[in-house]
Amino acid sequence: MLNRMRRGIGCAVVAMLAVPVAARAQQNGPSLADRYREPAGRIIGAALTDDGGWEKLAHLTTQIGARLAGSPQLERAVNWAAEKMRAEGLENVQLQPVKIPHWVRGREAAWITAPVEKPLAILGLGGSVGTPPEGITAPAIVVHGFDELEKLGREKIEGKIVVYSVPWEGYGRTVQYRSRGASRAAKLGAVAVLTRSATGRSLYTPHTGALDYSDDAPKIPAAALTVEDAQWLDRLAAGGAQIRIRLQMEAQLLPDADSANVIGEITGREKPEEIVVLGGHIDSWDVGQGANDDGSGIMATWQAVTLLKQLGLRPRRTLRVVLWTNEENGLRGAEAYRKWVGEKIGNHVAGIEMDGGAERPVGFGLSLGGARPEFGAAPARPDPALDAVLAKVQQIGDLLRGIDADEITRGGGGADIGPLMRDGMPGLGMRTVGEHYFDWHHTNSDTLDKVDPQEFRKCVAAIAVMAYVLAEMPDRLALSPAK
Amino acid sequence: MLNRMRRGIGCAVVAMLAVPVAARAQQNGPSLADRYREPAGRIIGAALTDDGGWEKLAHLTTQIGARLAGSPQLERAVNWAAEKMRAEGLENVQLQPVKIPHWVRGREAAWITAPVEKPLAILGLGGSVGTPPEGITAPAIVVHGFDELEKLGREKIEGKIVVYSVPWEGYGRTVQYRSRGASRAAKLGAVAVLTRSATGRSLYTPHTGALDYSDDAPKIPAAALTVEDAQWLDRLAAGGAQIRIRLQMEAQLLPDADSANVIGEITGREKPEEIVVLGGHIDSWDVGQGANDDGSGIMATWQAVTLLKQLGLRPRRTLRVVLWTNEENGLRGAEAYRKWVGEKIGNHVAGIEMDGGAERPVGFGLSLGGARPEFGAAPARPDPALDAVLAKVQQIGDLLRGIDADEITRGGGGADIGPLMRDGMPGLGMRTVGEHYFDWHHTNSDTLDKVDPQEFRKCVAAIAVMAYVLAEMPDRLALSPAK
Repeated sequence: MLNRMRRGIGCAVVAMLAVPVAARAQQNGPSLADRYREPAGRIIGAALTDDGGWEKLAHLTTQIGARLAGSPQLERAVNWAAEKMRAEGLENVQLQPVKIPHWVRGREAAWITAPVEKPLAILGLGGSVGTPPEGITAPAIVVHGFDELEKLGREKIEGKIVVYSVPWEGYGRTVQYRSRGASRAAKLGAVAVLTRSATGRSLYTPHTGALDYSDDAPKIPAAALTVEDAQWLDRLAAGGAQIRIRLQMEAQLLPDADSANVIGEITGREKPEEIVVLGGHIDSWDVGQGANDDGSGIMATWQAVTLLKQLGLRPRRTLRVVLWTNEENGLRGAEAYRKWVGEKIGNHVAGIEMDGGAERPVGFGLSLGGARPEFGAAPARPDPALDAVLAKVQQIGDLLRGIDADEITRGGGGADIGPLMRDGMPGLGMRTVGEHYFDWHHTNSDTLDKVDPQEFRKCVAAIAVMAYVLAEMPDRLALSPAK
Repeated sequence: MLNRMRRGIGCAVVAMLAVPVAARAQQNGPSLADRYREPAGRIIGAALTDDGGWEKLAHLTTQIGARLAGSPQLERAVNWAAEKMRAEGLENVQLQPVKIPHWVRGREAAWITAPVEKPLAILGLGGSVGTPPEGITAPAIVVHGFDELEKLGREKIEGKIVVYSVPWEGYGRTVQYRSRGASRAAKLGAVAVLTRSATGRSLYTPHTGALDYSDDAPKIPAAALTVEDAQWLDRLAAGGAQIRIRLQMEAQLLPDADSANVIGEITGREKPEEIVVLGGHIDSWDVGQGANDDGSGIMATWQAVTLLKQLGLRPRRTLRVVLWTNEENGLRGAEAYRKWVGEKIGNHVAGIEMDGGAERPVGFGLSLGGARPEFGAAPARPDPALDAVLAKVQQIGDLLRGIDADEITRGGGGADIGPLMRDGMPGLGMRTVGEHYFDWHHTNSDTLDKVDPQEFRKCVAAIAVMAYVLAEMPDRLALSPAK
């Protein structure tokens, strides 16, 4: 489906944009950068001196905190955000109802019980089943990847707790053990799995995150270990120790809960039916404060719209900020939004998501037709259709040179705008230097102190300029599929 | 006492070494670097290809783990080390008995109970008293330093749990709140204290460490908070919240326990009574594996001696490695060793301690007469006596240029050689780049994975060369006081 559509779009676009970029620039008069230099300057200046976005982020993280799907904290955040948007004068503010999964962690603990006795710091993986109340105590076997697991086979795996001591090779590669490790081991008879946290840097900090049970394997409990303990168990096993582990988890899945996407707008002055959508996800894991994942993303995108409102800039098209619910363990908010948009998907001119933390911004990644690379994946292959749109978006990016956020690169988007991109909407993702995001991601350390207010302001500035010009430029981005 | 002695020594040395350095070099023939280039090359080559030191460090951290004073783990480490030294052929291997304090952490936990309910990650401070079994629940007050504490006074502090939300300004400055925060608050009627962990970088990682109760204040329980929670409580309080905290700690001090310093030697071939002593501390806190604090230090100094033994290099003077016990919460091992040396302190030609982790080594810090600056303190003032000895030691340092560990700087030593330095022994401390030591220090993340085997080997190389030449050079270092 995805591939077919991309090819289709690709052909149409190549035909439309076959004129070389330089020639087009001449044909079309001044570049977007030249055309929108003045408002961009006002926007950047306002964003770099703004406190409103930071204050909202501080409120969310300090007063509300972690916001797992199904938690009262998430619903407090949802209602507070809608109220605040109304108070700021955003238009058509609404709560779009979404039924979301309601997984609760409960108490959880793990111990190595042989050859020594010692607690192991864990975080159960989101969606995991619990253990019996007395826990599961079993011999542990350490493996370094799926190949080794398969090679060991049922004979060695059955009845064991499988410890995945897998090296960090970037999120995209490493996260598969968190996602699929439980079912892969369960197929061979494992009774539980413990996975080394998906991070390149640890100070004894376990990282949670969603797992995906496959339908053809028993559901067994799964939790993340710290990098330190995973490596220690690995060394113990390599030294010949017979390791036993006890795991206790109260985790359970409750009936679906009620939540909502939070939506606010600046209605377009000429083409209100055409939409530039921007946002991130308002939910988080149940640890830390969801400051970088994705508090900073929702606040930067929201504040971008609020600043434009305050500056009296009402663009040609509608700017819509959406704080999607339940990205982390369901993506139900994104799917509900897509369903609500329905046949009018062609009116979604572009989407901008910020969900990679508010480190120093460097620009945006751009994808067409659903091509959103995973974090850490190889760059997308050359694509003339994409490059043509990229050249246009780069003209907007040029306005961000003064804040060093002017790099427009291939491959971007976000999980929340994924269903829209899947159906043809060009998607942009805020890109940062990304030095520490995966140190904090899904941990108790994802807290406000990890967000630098000045880098956060730059993110607001970059998003506000990008969103404004996309909504204001005379011709919409050419790449949405005809619907 | 210290100042008087330093002045005395200083005068003598200035008189002795008044000849300019260049002139002396001519008088004395080739520099130490020229003289010992050949054995230094052999030592460095052996150290950089050595696995024995790493294997011992891996055994200590993997098989034994944390080694708090009074724990069976510490005594396992002590006995294993002595056996291993004997097996390696070190001479005069002995266990020097030391009575050490026996503090145990027990279970501990803390919660914020208002305005929200949530656990707080803590580590009780070493030496802290416990709480009553039901814990202490009290309103919390956040302060940012001792000045603010005093200004608030008894009226505001009495009956409260004091939270020190103090910024990281380097270990030397920040650690005072861990050391003295409890008693300073107790004098004003506080019922407990929680101190922001002494670190510049946190992934929700509390740091323990010793506290010092003063005699003129009630002993109240004290624990370290994570940087994240300290800053969060600070923001909550700044927003006007009435914070309540519940703290439960089982910590207690048991009767003194038996331990020992582990000592091994290469007896000097010409002046066996003259000693170059080197080592670190074999104990650690009860969290993590004591890998950098101070497993890497004892293994690097020990392996330096073992390598010289293996190379058949028996220097003029005696090389003595000491793995001191109970540095962390008593310094009893160091004091027992000093007492044992007694009147013969003048025979201690020099001491080398490594207790700052095995990051990339850059050289050694040198102090005379007990001047050991705290971590992070301002550099010592110019001191002609010190500079003269420093020039000599720099000649040895020059042999370490090939491993970039040739910087000999003012100010160094270590806590374990402190009592010897106090009485006149020149002291050297291994210096590293020190980028991450205080990220790991006194935490569950002080584990083997934080030690880079190759940097560790460089530390062994640098220490082995320095120790060998100090023990081999014709004239002893001039600076020990006549005894």
